Amino acid sequence: MRVEREKRTIIEPKVLKGFRDFLPSMEIPKKAIVSKLEEHFSLYGFVPIDTPVLEYTEVLLGKGGGETDKQIFHFLDNGNRDVALRFDLTVPFARFLAQHQNELAFPFKRFHIDKVWRGENPQKGRFREFTQCDFDIVGVDSAEADYEILAMMESSFEVIGVTDFTFCIAHRGLFNAFLDHLGVADQSVQILRIVDKLKKIGTEEVLSLLVACTGTQEKANEILKYIAVEDEGESFLTTLERLTVLSGGENEHTTRMQTIYGYLRDAGIDGHFRLDPSITRGLDYYTGIVYETFLTELPHFGSVCSGGRYNDLASLYTKEQLPGVGSSIGLDRLLSALEELDSPLIKKASSADLIIFCVDETLRSYYDTLARTFRSAGIRTDVYLLNKKMGAQFKYAEANHIPYGLSCAPDEQNSGKVTLKNLQNREVHQMISIEEGISIIKKELL
Amino acid sequence: MRVEREKRTIIEPKVLKGFRDFLPSMEIPKKAIVSKLEEHFSLYGFVPIDTPVLEYTEVLLGKGGGETDKQIFHFLDNGNRDVALRFDLTVPFARFLAQHQNELAFPFKRFHIDKVWRGENPQKGRFREFTQCDFDIVGVDSAEADYEILAMMESSFEVIGVTDFTFCIAHRGLFNAFLDHLGVADQSVQILRIVDKLKKIGTEEVLSLLVACTGTQEKANEILKYIAVEDEGESFLTTLERLTVLSGGENEHTTRMQTIYGYLRDAGIDGHFRLDPSITRGLDYYTGIVYETFLTELPHFGSVCSGGRYNDLASLYTKEQLPGVGSSIGLDRLLSALEELDSPLIKKASSADLIIFCVDETLRSYYDTLARTFRSAGIRTDVYLLNKKMGAQFKYAEANHIPYGLSCAPDEQNSGKVTLKNLQNREVHQMISIEEGISIIKKELL
Repeated sequence: MRVEREKRTIIEPKVLKGFRDFLPSMEIPKKAIVSKLEEHFSLYGFVPIDTPVLEYTEVLLGKGGGETDKQIFHFLDNGNRDVALRFDLTVPFARFLAQHQNELAFPFKRFHIDKVWRGENPQKGRFREFTQCDFDIVGVDSAEADYEILAMMESSFEVIGVTDFTFCIAHRGLFNAFLDHLGVADQSVQILRIVDKLKKIGTEEVLSLLVACTGTQEKANEILKYIAVEDEGESFLTTLERLTVLSGGENEHTTRMQTIYGYLRDAGIDGHFRLDPSITRGLDYYTGIVYETFLTELPHFGSVCSGGRYNDLASLYTKEQLPGVGSSIGLDRLLSALEELDSPLIKKASSADLIIFCVDETLRSYYDTLARTFRSAGIRTDVYLLNKKMGAQFKYAEANHIPYGLSCAPDEQNSGKVTLKNLQNREVHQMISIEEGISIIKKELL
Repeated sequence: MRVEREKRTIIEPKVLKGFRDFLPSMEIPKKAIVSKLEEHFSLYGFVPIDTPVLEYTEVLLGKGGGETDKQIFHFLDNGNRDVALRFDLTVPFARFLAQHQNELAFPFKRFHIDKVWRGENPQKGRFREFTQCDFDIVGVDSAEADYEILAMMESSFEVIGVTDFTFCIAHRGLFNAFLDHLGVADQSVQILRIVDKLKKIGTEEVLSLLVACTGTQEKANEILKYIAVEDEGESFLTTLERLTVLSGGENEHTTRMQTIYGYLRDAGIDGHFRLDPSITRGLDYYTGIVYETFLTELPHFGSVCSGGRYNDLASLYTKEQLPGVGSSIGLDRLLSALEELDSPLIKKASSADLIIFCVDETLRSYYDTLARTFRSAGIRTDVYLLNKKMGAQFKYAEANHIPYGLSCAPDEQNSGKVTLKNLQNREVHQMISIEEGISIIKKELL
């Protein structure tokens, strides 16, 4: 594809509002996190899929369309098709499941980490192009699947070095049973949207909205009693007992929650989970557990990972019922959080572990041989490509945060020796063998 | 973001023409190749960057626009901006360099592996959404940088298990020197486009086009003599000598080629490189070496990796001159090639290494503990989530190509033993310890 290059007018190099470049200092940690997550999901037997960035608008929005339209990048393509950029990874996944259900083995455990686009007004930490990380188990409605998603979620955070977090869980089925018991099941959709605002607008505002919705102060109070967590330290099972009583006694949902909790406790990870009945998640399609994730040190960041159980994800595209449970990590938000937490994951953005300085231009081929040897040992090795003074070479190494420098003059080459310098603490190892160089770097870096 | 779910009309689940889903059987090997390449590029000190999928159309196309327009997905966004999906990774990289040149350390070595979109008519093996893998060194014009790109390219193919390939190299500066010597430098742009078609339309057609272009049979013959490779076995240096004579003797370009060849030979990789003066690459911006890559067993696939040296990539966006050299691997085409070559890389698409069967529902927590132990040892471990008969469980394992199955009944649990089955050769290890299980799998799989 050719680009008109004859015009010499300079075009201002800029990106669209709400979009951004990732320079290596940010892209290196982002890739590191993604690859840790992918490896981790694979350890659980989850598999990756990919779907097109562009889809029929009707497929993404349903025949209704509606309010979300404005937030979506959509247009007519050259074939006059109404097409749109995906705005999440869930809707394409539902379409994918309906389309390929006969090619897949269920329970189907998949992950998908990629970009989505929304035309909303950019705010601090919010972009029009951002990366989601979704993982789901489809084809099974059980406490075991619910637990597996929660457990993998928990270990995912550990794997990327985030240790101070809380998963707030609730159960949508239990909440509905409670509303039913209270005699306001008909208003459940409106009620759960009001309740969802609790953390944003506060108790009083929620209460007055609930009164308006249910028609009585008494029922509004009762709902508030259900969702309010008065004692943050209340144990999972105590909260569950309280909710069970409010819902009129044990039912399949309270049993499910007990079973899930049992698995969390047996695995020794229940400390990270809190039963928080104010969590509802706005979306209609959740039917079982729902959850949000908060970083203890950065509560203002909001939830960095959310999801829940749905019993009919692909109903827009197939009559086959496909129950599932899944989560979505907002990767860019998590990245911003790690930056704010001064995480070592973000700081270690060196372009290489070692740079081979160019001390003598005639030794180029030998420098290349040295580089190959270090690379074979798994050491990321850059060769300085210009023939500049050492000052410029050190500056290049510093700008790229390369921790080791190696130089080799003709007399050293003759004796098979090199000089290795730790560029951070300035320690110099003179006239050492290549093997010694490798072992010093490996020992100190790993 | 909410999707209208009330409508119960089924929408046909389908993707756009020229677009496709990647099921795990294809996405697993694709991800494996991408991650091998990324790791390999990192070993050379190359760093990743990312740019937006959507850019100002003017930024991508230049003020001219022109013929490429039709192949580009572009539209007016909600803010009435003319925006387009990127059609390659080179133009956004040029914009990126101009925009961030003061934040980067040169020589800047970057890679970028991601999707691009072109609205051309889909053919076999050609899609409207496809993945490119680009790597470049910017900020240095030298034989050392040229060599480094070629060497990294060569080892990239080795790393992904492709061993039977040839890099066909030519030098655009040398070709221009030859045309100058022949007195047809003014027609160089037209001539190189004609020559570029040699492999497609054949010698005779090219000759008649050259006669029409240069005006004389003699000059056309001379050009054909330059580009023709009569003896496929002719050595690199012999061809170079021949071209040197035809160009009127040694010049900076012949020297550059000699130096590059010296490095390739010193590294012992010259066997993969052939000097092929018929390679020109259509694009105007190349000024030095240009190359294409062919798979020996699949010549009809065309080039799976191409590129060259340019001396002014970002001239559309900055007055700063930024020379560079780079390559682009067509990842989807390479993937199709590997499929056709029956590469083991494509076949090994198992979702996990081990599945823990559900023999007794009351042992769920213990199965989870076992799974965690195997995962800690780096073994990808799936737990069967349903309570179905063994036949269904084996079927699930088979559909997912999982090579090992583990079962554990209550009496085994009591003695800390398990039964491991190799699901491919049916070998069964009864009543073994967990450690034995781990070491069997690790030994046989790795």
